[in-house]
Amino acid sequence: MQRAAPQEFDRVLSSMCTQPHPAAREAAARFLATNPGDPATYQAVAALEDDALASLGEITGLSSPYGYIASGGTEANIQAIRAARNHARDDDPNVVAPESVHFSFQKAADVLGVELRTVPVDADYRANVDAVSEAVDDHTILVAGVAGTTEFGRVDPIPELTTIAHDVGATMHVDAAWGGFVLPFTDHEWSFAHAPIDSMTIDPHKFGQAVVPAGGLLFRERELLDALAVDTPYLESTSQATLTGTRSGAGVASAAAAMRELWPDGYREVYERQQANAEWLYDELVARGYDGVEPELPLVAAPIPDAEFESLRDLGWRISRTASDELRVVCMPHVSRESLRAFLADLDDVGSGPARN
Amino acid sequence: MQRAAPQEFDRVLSSMCTQPHPAAREAAARFLATNPGDPATYQAVAALEDDALASLGEITGLSSPYGYIASGGTEANIQAIRAARNHARDDDPNVVAPESVHFSFQKAADVLGVELRTVPVDADYRANVDAVSEAVDDHTILVAGVAGTTEFGRVDPIPELTTIAHDVGATMHVDAAWGGFVLPFTDHEWSFAHAPIDSMTIDPHKFGQAVVPAGGLLFRERELLDALAVDTPYLESTSQATLTGTRSGAGVASAAAAMRELWPDGYREVYERQQANAEWLYDELVARGYDGVEPELPLVAAPIPDAEFESLRDLGWRISRTASDELRVVCMPHVSRESLRAFLADLDDVGSGPARN
Repeated sequence: MQRAAPQEFDRVLSSMCTQPHPAAREAAARFLATNPGDPATYQAVAALEDDALASLGEITGLSSPYGYIASGGTEANIQAIRAARNHARDDDPNVVAPESVHFSFQKAADVLGVELRTVPVDADYRANVDAVSEAVDDHTILVAGVAGTTEFGRVDPIPELTTIAHDVGATMHVDAAWGGFVLPFTDHEWSFAHAPIDSMTIDPHKFGQAVVPAGGLLFRERELLDALAVDTPYLESTSQATLTGTRSGAGVASAAAAMRELWPDGYREVYERQQANAEWLYDELVARGYDGVEPELPLVAAPIPDAEFESLRDLGWRISRTASDELRVVCMPHVSRESLRAFLADLDDVGSGPARN
Repeated sequence: MQRAAPQEFDRVLSSMCTQPHPAAREAAARFLATNPGDPATYQAVAALEDDALASLGEITGLSSPYGYIASGGTEANIQAIRAARNHARDDDPNVVAPESVHFSFQKAADVLGVELRTVPVDADYRANVDAVSEAVDDHTILVAGVAGTTEFGRVDPIPELTTIAHDVGATMHVDAAWGGFVLPFTDHEWSFAHAPIDSMTIDPHKFGQAVVPAGGLLFRERELLDALAVDTPYLESTSQATLTGTRSGAGVASAAAAMRELWPDGYREVYERQQANAEWLYDELVARGYDGVEPELPLVAAPIPDAEFESLRDLGWRISRTASDELRVVCMPHVSRESLRAFLADLDDVGSGPARN
């Protein structure tokens, strides 16, 4: 009989997921057979989803959040665009976003049949406000900003983007899938409290330390959530606003449990520790002559030669690169200083260093 | 601190999900923190997904299946239509399906911007072949048949529908989300072995006894799966054909474990026991004068008066109705003869019976 070991996280530096909190894991195990897609039948998990949404509202500055626990950031982004599209009823809809948006926006455009206009970022990898302003028009149904980009952990100028969106009657969406559980402890302007944004993606299964799959989609107003509803005959529940229908009760229960356990102090501790780890790693790379990208959030990028990248992979490091080929190290909660020390030691062993590149 | 109890399955008669097999539950708990959406990083769960697909291929008569473990039947149906749409590149695409298709087809039509043409069923709730034949045209990208309908557990005439689909150059899709793990033990013609169908939905988290979420999407040819692919920069993996991106490692691992444990003998035993339970319940209802729908698969429908339906709900029975208001009892593996006896006893207590309706 084949047996596969579960993921060893020691050497995973590329993932935006992490080891779940023990309370999240325990809650997940108790709800493995429930379906929040049918809340009238599965009432216990439906109550936990209400808890989870209330917690997400607290974290993002929204006292009455509308939304649900999704399978992850991809579903939440697709659904935010679908809601805007259904609400706008435009015959030739487009979405404007910085080129730094997650690839789920390309998927959403394909799935939903909307045009995606990506515009350049500035020298520090943030959405270029002028370029966004030039790209929008009367058919723009949604403008997206990212609060914690996948490649460099950057936060777009959300208030300015929101003004541009609303000036053309578009919905303003913030993708905080990865950043949402660390940004509350920074000075960034990113949330429902900082700007009149309309929707947000924020994933408990990333820095929220829930089990996979537990994403989050939030709307300020009910009408955008309602734009997603389809009737559900032969369930006890009568309508459904999600994309997938059947959903993970384990994910929902674990998200509620993790946020109950960790918000705010537990998340603050993780943010402070992992931000310090990222800054330490950046300094170490710069000291070795690598041209790193300074971490604003717990993510470090630095160009390293191909041969070294491949050698590190051969040594078992799970690493990936940005579109412009920088090494990315995502300092998720499971990434310890000790692990980063070991990584640097291996880099020193395999490396010729940037000078010889 | 709020505590919610996990679902008690004793009185759940309406769900198409069930208690997972212990082996599925154990496998799920080991993979709660993995993401099969990034197989290059999470290799152990990626290997289990290959196992699960191979098992699904055996069950459905496909020696080289292409596909993946989805979040459930809704995602699989949406993706089958998206694959057909992207492959056909028609400027005004339509999908033809019997009115008995799952409501996820309405959702898919909304999400994907395709026209859904539903056509009447025959007197025994199966797709009317003549009506399907009249509804298709040159813009039809997909014809759907259901192998185990949600409302009545009926199997559409799949070979005939396939001929109609292929005559107009459309993809033939079979939704066996619920029926796929019981149909192998019947004489129905429903699988890749019985007709040149192109795609299928079959959910391990229903009769397959995996944990939620574990759906299945299968294609006969690789090109339809490839029509779903988008590039994935900054993952170790380079492209992704799923809808949700991040996915449940627990679902994948549990599907592989359940099928390894139960195919074929364990599933056969469940089918035989639950089919016998359904037939017994039908006979009991008919004996009481109810106008039941004879169960071809383990699902019984019967019209009962509103007042009795509501009284049974008040007694804690989780029940639902068809669009035409019949009570539905889905004889999933957790539904025991003892439970059905208790249900009938309550029906006798609350009921005036059909004669007085």
